[in-house]
Amino acid sequence: MRRLADITPVRWDNGSISWIDQTRIPWGEEWKASSSVEQLAKAIEALEIRGAPAIGIAAAYGIALAAHLSRGKGEMKTNVMQAYERLRRTRPTAVNLFWALDRMLSRYTGLSGPDVPTDDTKTLLLKEAKAIHEEDVQADKDMGRHGNALVKDGDVILTHCNAGALATGGWGTSYGIIRTAWQSGKDIRVIATTTAPLYQGARLTMWELKRDGIPAKLITDNMAAYAMKEEKISKVLLGADRILMNGTVANKIGTYGLAVLAKYHKIPFYVAAPVSTIDPKGKTIPIEQRKPEEVRNILGRLQITIQDAQVLNPAFDITPDSLVSAIVTERGIARRPYAKSLAAMVRYRGIPPAP
Amino acid sequence: MRRLADITPVRWDNGSISWIDQTRIPWGEEWKASSSVEQLAKAIEALEIRGAPAIGIAAAYGIALAAHLSRGKGEMKTNVMQAYERLRRTRPTAVNLFWALDRMLSRYTGLSGPDVPTDDTKTLLLKEAKAIHEEDVQADKDMGRHGNALVKDGDVILTHCNAGALATGGWGTSYGIIRTAWQSGKDIRVIATTTAPLYQGARLTMWELKRDGIPAKLITDNMAAYAMKEEKISKVLLGADRILMNGTVANKIGTYGLAVLAKYHKIPFYVAAPVSTIDPKGKTIPIEQRKPEEVRNILGRLQITIQDAQVLNPAFDITPDSLVSAIVTERGIARRPYAKSLAAMVRYRGIPPAP
Repeated sequence: MRRLADITPVRWDNGSISWIDQTRIPWGEEWKASSSVEQLAKAIEALEIRGAPAIGIAAAYGIALAAHLSRGKGEMKTNVMQAYERLRRTRPTAVNLFWALDRMLSRYTGLSGPDVPTDDTKTLLLKEAKAIHEEDVQADKDMGRHGNALVKDGDVILTHCNAGALATGGWGTSYGIIRTAWQSGKDIRVIATTTAPLYQGARLTMWELKRDGIPAKLITDNMAAYAMKEEKISKVLLGADRILMNGTVANKIGTYGLAVLAKYHKIPFYVAAPVSTIDPKGKTIPIEQRKPEEVRNILGRLQITIQDAQVLNPAFDITPDSLVSAIVTERGIARRPYAKSLAAMVRYRGIPPAP
Repeated sequence: MRRLADITPVRWDNGSISWIDQTRIPWGEEWKASSSVEQLAKAIEALEIRGAPAIGIAAAYGIALAAHLSRGKGEMKTNVMQAYERLRRTRPTAVNLFWALDRMLSRYTGLSGPDVPTDDTKTLLLKEAKAIHEEDVQADKDMGRHGNALVKDGDVILTHCNAGALATGGWGTSYGIIRTAWQSGKDIRVIATTTAPLYQGARLTMWELKRDGIPAKLITDNMAAYAMKEEKISKVLLGADRILMNGTVANKIGTYGLAVLAKYHKIPFYVAAPVSTIDPKGKTIPIEQRKPEEVRNILGRLQITIQDAQVLNPAFDITPDSLVSAIVTERGIARRPYAKSLAAMVRYRGIPPAP
């Protein structure tokens, strides 16, 4: 088996939360730590921690942290509820965030009765957050195994944004499949899009590919159609921030365009995400509109247009199920009709029995 | 009639050639001048002068300059031939460059006999270059008039790269149509793509739109599909660097992808370019592959990926005629089958009678 790099982008560290600041990659590898929920929330808003699963994990640790900092049951209730509300407001699109927060809150509610000592509540909430983290890594590895069945020796795989170790508990969703395929000995090549305006593909995915030793080329987003045709791309494989039960996928801006281009070029278009990304009740998906400055001024460092340029800056777009060849989760591969295949996947989901 | 901004990006200036350095926009407006053909060639290679028609005009002035600098017939022959060969090597894709150089060389050949005084040759070659320039502006205005017939009040027009005044003699090809429509009082809005990796859309088109007072929004290249759907784009309108007789279009990287997206969204996809862009004999189009550094390091100012990243960097892509709704030239609007409609347009082309 080929060796891969090892990274845990968010972790609990002795009463505080540590994370690698993803806004600093690839220029540096800078770890931050905080024992303030507010600072954690700001790190999520500033995209220092990003990627739907990683945000969910960070938020879960945030609830454990809020409990950890409390003296007595009354203070804990206030702190946990404040942390829950604050963390919910950080990013609107990723459903894992709400899923992880709700799971932590539900666990907290079960532990808040008069017969549970405060310290036990703290311990068990931290255990729950760690379980969310470990389950995520395990889910990604399972997803990798399922998804690897779709990958052939010689494949040229186009990916978008970053759905790698950095975006998750430490393995990766769609990029985790690429890692699994590579680890298993398949000779694949990756084409990564830069992913404007925040360049997660150029900065983060290329950084991970290099660390993992997987052959890769970077393209600007507008080269995707050219690359599909001229570089013989055989698969498109990317992540998701939210998936509706009918197979509608919200993911990083540009995903919808890639899906249309893949269809035109008759290239399979695969989405990989943990079951926690599936929104069992949602009918529509709110699209986060971010600051114009992100488009005008690349990474806050290089102005590329006139100062007062009007811009659009949706962080995500919506891909209809008709363009999605398959959705890979830790429970297998779903195909159309998604209403049926995703329902089967979600059925077993829920809060695992308390330990 | 609404007023528009006035600019002549390349001009003959009393024995030297002046140009606005397009690599400096939007940070500054810097004019350069040179009486060296080598420096002119370098300015074209460095994209200080860019846009297929503007390159052709600059090259024509370059031939006039080579003659202007010569003492006697023998030296002129050497200088003109060296300038011709040097300027031919600057950019491989734009056909206007070769067209303008050939037209100048043909004019020179007609003037190189023993009965034409050297000074007359200089004067008449400069006159020919100026004619190429003036004809370009006139062609763009004619193109604007023809193309304006395709534009409706209320249109939301997506454009790519820069095919404006800066890319031409001073009016613009596809952007010239937008200017004409705006000048004629139609209420249109423009969506401009940033156009990675060199950001001509963000830097140049947005700069022109602002100067012209036309309402516009900037998007990153990967927002095009989103914008087509959510911003109700009603037309795609862009330029071309080379057009084959069968309607195949080479234009800035990203064009092909936009054409596929337009087709999926049932949005008309229009290409506008002067007849000199049509390659009457070509069967294929060489695609200029530019330096990896342009993708790794935005505008030479901001590194966005790991240092040794492998990249693709084609400057252009190829759009098949099946995706092109119409081609607008100064002679009218061509539609499929292009073999027939373009042939009719090209038929009258050639070197105009000597003055």
